[in-house]
Amino acid sequence: MTTLHPFDPITPGEIQLAAKLLQASFPGVPLRYKKIDTQEPIKKEVVPYVEAERLGKPLPRKPTRLLQVLFHRLDTGAFHKALLNADTRSIVYAKELPKGVQGPADVDEIVEIEQLCLSHPAVQAEVAKLQLPAGATICNDPWIYGTDNANETRRLWQCYMYVIATDHPQNNHYSTPCRFSPVFDGVTKELVRMDYLPSGPDGTSTETQPWKPVETVQYAHDLLDTPLRTDLKPYIVQQPQGPSFDVKGNVVQWQKWRFRVGFNSREGMVIHNLTYDNRNVFYRLSVSEMTVPYGDPRAPFHRKQAFDVGDVGFGLTANQLALGCDCLGHIKYFDGYRADTQGNPVLLKNVICLHEQDNGLQHKHTNYRSGAATVVRNRQLVVQMICTVSNYEYIFAFIFDQAANIELEIRATGILSTVPFDNHKFGTTVPWGTNVGPGVMAPNHQHMFSFRMDPAIDGHNNTVYYEDSVPMPEDENNPYLVGYTTEQTVLGTSGTANTSVERHRVFKIRNDTKINPVTYKPISYKLQTSPSQMLLASPRSFGLKRAQFATKPIWVTKYRDDELFAAGEFTNQSQESEGVEKWAARNESVENDDVVLWHTFGLTHNPRVEDFPVMPMERVSVMLRPDGFFTKNPALDVPQSSQTFNQSTLHPEAAACCGPPAEIQKGKL
Amino acid sequence: MTTLHPFDPITPGEIQLAAKLLQASFPGVPLRYKKIDTQEPIKKEVVPYVEAERLGKPLPRKPTRLLQVLFHRLDTGAFHKALLNADTRSIVYAKELPKGVQGPADVDEIVEIEQLCLSHPAVQAEVAKLQLPAGATICNDPWIYGTDNANETRRLWQCYMYVIATDHPQNNHYSTPCRFSPVFDGVTKELVRMDYLPSGPDGTSTETQPWKPVETVQYAHDLLDTPLRTDLKPYIVQQPQGPSFDVKGNVVQWQKWRFRVGFNSREGMVIHNLTYDNRNVFYRLSVSEMTVPYGDPRAPFHRKQAFDVGDVGFGLTANQLALGCDCLGHIKYFDGYRADTQGNPVLLKNVICLHEQDNGLQHKHTNYRSGAATVVRNRQLVVQMICTVSNYEYIFAFIFDQAANIELEIRATGILSTVPFDNHKFGTTVPWGTNVGPGVMAPNHQHMFSFRMDPAIDGHNNTVYYEDSVPMPEDENNPYLVGYTTEQTVLGTSGTANTSVERHRVFKIRNDTKINPVTYKPISYKLQTSPSQMLLASPRSFGLKRAQFATKPIWVTKYRDDELFAAGEFTNQSQESEGVEKWAARNESVENDDVVLWHTFGLTHNPRVEDFPVMPMERVSVMLRPDGFFTKNPALDVPQSSQTFNQSTLHPEAAACCGPPAEIQKGKL
Repeated sequence: MTTLHPFDPITPGEIQLAAKLLQASFPGVPLRYKKIDTQEPIKKEVVPYVEAERLGKPLPRKPTRLLQVLFHRLDTGAFHKALLNADTRSIVYAKELPKGVQGPADVDEIVEIEQLCLSHPAVQAEVAKLQLPAGATICNDPWIYGTDNANETRRLWQCYMYVIATDHPQNNHYSTPCRFSPVFDGVTKELVRMDYLPSGPDGTSTETQPWKPVETVQYAHDLLDTPLRTDLKPYIVQQPQGPSFDVKGNVVQWQKWRFRVGFNSREGMVIHNLTYDNRNVFYRLSVSEMTVPYGDPRAPFHRKQAFDVGDVGFGLTANQLALGCDCLGHIKYFDGYRADTQGNPVLLKNVICLHEQDNGLQHKHTNYRSGAATVVRNRQLVVQMICTVSNYEYIFAFIFDQAANIELEIRATGILSTVPFDNHKFGTTVPWGTNVGPGVMAPNHQHMFSFRMDPAIDGHNNTVYYEDSVPMPEDENNPYLVGYTTEQTVLGTSGTANTSVERHRVFKIRNDTKINPVTYKPISYKLQTSPSQMLLASPRSFGLKRAQFATKPIWVTKYRDDELFAAGEFTNQSQESEGVEKWAARNESVENDDVVLWHTFGLTHNPRVEDFPVMPMERVSVMLRPDGFFTKNPALDVPQSSQTFNQSTLHPEAAACCGPPAEIQKGKL
Repeated sequence: MTTLHPFDPITPGEIQLAAKLLQASFPGVPLRYKKIDTQEPIKKEVVPYVEAERLGKPLPRKPTRLLQVLFHRLDTGAFHKALLNADTRSIVYAKELPKGVQGPADVDEIVEIEQLCLSHPAVQAEVAKLQLPAGATICNDPWIYGTDNANETRRLWQCYMYVIATDHPQNNHYSTPCRFSPVFDGVTKELVRMDYLPSGPDGTSTETQPWKPVETVQYAHDLLDTPLRTDLKPYIVQQPQGPSFDVKGNVVQWQKWRFRVGFNSREGMVIHNLTYDNRNVFYRLSVSEMTVPYGDPRAPFHRKQAFDVGDVGFGLTANQLALGCDCLGHIKYFDGYRADTQGNPVLLKNVICLHEQDNGLQHKHTNYRSGAATVVRNRQLVVQMICTVSNYEYIFAFIFDQAANIELEIRATGILSTVPFDNHKFGTTVPWGTNVGPGVMAPNHQHMFSFRMDPAIDGHNNTVYYEDSVPMPEDENNPYLVGYTTEQTVLGTSGTANTSVERHRVFKIRNDTKINPVTYKPISYKLQTSPSQMLLASPRSFGLKRAQFATKPIWVTKYRDDELFAAGEFTNQSQESEGVEKWAARNESVENDDVVLWHTFGLTHNPRVEDFPVMPMERVSVMLRPDGFFTKNPALDVPQSSQTFNQSTLHPEAAACCGPPAEIQKGKL
């Protein structure tokens, strides 16, 4: 039996085991691995185990350790999925998936397609037509193909081509997009088609012309034509007594919080088994999916719709973080592992970081009679992952504080996905994008995230409801017409709900069996949503059919194993999603039951020119806050903020030139 | 002529001058000063002056230095307003205001009323009926009376009474509200009425009964029944080379930003004459008003509606900040002055603080081919003020960053305003509030802020418009049904607009005469609103009539001097507001003109029990971001984040117990 915890990420040994088991079951067949990872353990096996851990009771049988493998048979090209039992070192199943089901991109495949594209004679012929100046070369970003044809079953890649105008490791090729874009079959490696990109407001395109060099828009400091700022002074975070957290393996303890940091190649960072002061709060928190549809209507851009979780994976694209760049203070890093195409483990170093931060004041009150002030700062614990998805970066952080709040903060940064555009003539614009440089335009797009919350508010049976603030009727109970109350609506069966700013709608997760002794209402956590515009694509479009999670801000489903990803298991070139909308449609009772809450939110991102060549972060956040979970402010016992502890520095005053008269500086004044 | 800058706050000498001038013009008449402060200088005089400063040109004549005084004649009780010219040391006017116009509360008046109340025989008689145990005493919070009668012209105070159960400077008396509440005439000092507060779900009240001691809910660390946390380690911000800002008088320069920190007794902190890289951005930014109406329909609580700017003033209630409590790092403080009732200056020490903070990453991109990463952290400059308004605290911060973003962040903390409530019987609740302790309930309320933005986007004539994101029609220009565009609506005449999450509505302020050479569109700044529920009070209620600014999230008006406060000049006991709604109703052209943009936003605050006895901060924020103001990301020239600069610390790893095999740690892995 393994020494691993059920929530521990996959180990190198398990990757090797999986490859060995599969190879043995396909003797002589060359296999290409796409993914070897843990399979989320079966909840009904895990709950008794983690409950025993929490209560300090004897541990029951450890949940089955399951592994999941996606692979291709190279002899037939067939795509397979296998489930393995690591405890018994056996294959539960290894099944061929239906034709047309496409697995996600993997790191090696992307590099492979990139090279295939660059070395293809047809591409080289187009490059030749560019008549590039000396020193300029070409690169390409292989893009997930997207969907516009219900009969397409090939695995396709659309390569967007760029001129590398400057030989520098941080040259911004997104400033110089080319006007041709080959499409490859990722299995047969054949060139399917050479697309020529539209470069004016209408959809028409032209044959490849000689490249007209333009001034590129660069972000690398070496390549700027202006000097760097010299007036920014160091700001150093010192934790002379070390951090306030304690980490053992993947278990983190900090300020009454305890949780396990999970990692998998698809979601990346996951929070498991979250407790506060040894009370259950959440079973699992993760960003379950995201989609980025573009609003440019012109072919082939209409197919640009990334599902960054399902199509690639935030685990695979997580940055290997470097000390002193991505965080300040005392930093703990977590590693992960992925498999390569041969089934060998690959270390993903420093893919998650953990550190504390100061977030200003948490609470303050001054008794104006006595002048006595209570001041408590808001120390936070940040679990962070930064993902590079080709051009774009996402910074994900789960932020915990001492008042039992949980924040999911997402920052969008990186480089806009650009298209070539004939904007050299003054005034040429399109209504679906922004000119960001000479010959280059950045189309409007949306970033829609799905935050999956599997609650355990003092137990695993919970109820989701929403609460609106509404004026009281204008009757004898409200004679002065200022009364307002709240109105509760229980989401008793699985389904959806809308946010509502007008009604100040708040979603809550309560435990109907635990009544707060002060409020006389069930204990709960509330979700402060981030009300967002939902998908703009037409309900008749593939774009929307594939991402139905992004048509409603709130979904509730009854928990079932294996229902983790809002747009379904396989998103790459999907025809329609098989995700949360299907599970919600079962109309199951979710009242006082094992309910899962999903929140879709995001950004409609109509680029600013200031977002280029690299984008100042756009921040979006949702919060989970206790609401009647405690009987009073849980941060009351945080020590007072004091100069002894904080050691701040007073700014030296310049010699007074026009200060107040001496008599005013003294006495009452 | 004064050596002061037009935007400099009032000086002690000016306060003394004002009192001297007025006393001379009312010989022998005893005067009681309510306010002596600067009057906002006349914009058409200021603009040429600050433009000359900005452009390094010879300075024109300095704008007239105006002072404003509110005072009572103690012989007649009449309330007056005076305008003074400090340059000529003369009175422009001193006029008696109409009967019924109430000036704001002032610090001395509140103390006066408190003492009046405690020493009044009728109050003492009620206190006697409480038969308080030894050691327990009584205090009261004099409350702004509010409005429920169109004929009321007296200056009234409603004193809410509390038991001080514990003799400690931080005793939380809000945990033990009494059930009687005297109303005083603030001018005649007479007891107008003894109100008995309802203490059950209906509005009925009872005669004062002996006090039944309850367990109080305390926040002071000395008074907690649980020990403080001992596992929070110090987190120290060091700036060994000093701050990156430079302050001369009230001028702040930091990272291409330059502005003047203003201070007045009403708004407190104000940002004047904000430029970035010597380009005009905003003429003036301030929190112009806020109102806090309560949703408890029972008399006398229906009158609880504070206007914390107009009724008292954030300058007067600003905390005198202490090093090492309210901020970390290198701190610069600004002082202010107010007048006492005799017209003497009173120093308000450290009412505004200035410091830098680190806000995580500003932008990052990793070129996945080369692995080269550009990482720039988000250093911010914070101008902060913390106000204590009896029970509540507000933390206001203008936050500037290196990408030319401006954030107004407001944190609500402090203590809930509570009412007595018979909740000793299990299950007794009201739908308009939350039980927060034995015998005490905190009613629902709203916090509605008005952010006033006087823009100067590369010049003083600007246009406000909003931009919605809308799907393209399903026609031949959108064959794949995924296209979406933006739709612009200019607010050409003064008026209002709504926010819209569904349409991702963004408000922008543009300069029609300056076209961005890259986007080919007018340069602009955008306002990222905080879409909020507007006032819940009925349109027929005084609550709403007095705070019409809080019925719409967006207002635009044509600039006029003296139109600074969203609910009008005099809010205390106002019958209806005389503010932004009146100015907007003029239907003036504000296109390419001197336009002012007002954003109303806030919190519907239905208390959590966790918000008691002191509230973990609730944060609300709006952002002003350049949108086509620059030709690219303005933070490109911020130096790379590096370990040399940041000096972070790596968490020491425990001895590996189950690390990867040696061969995996090396090589490709």
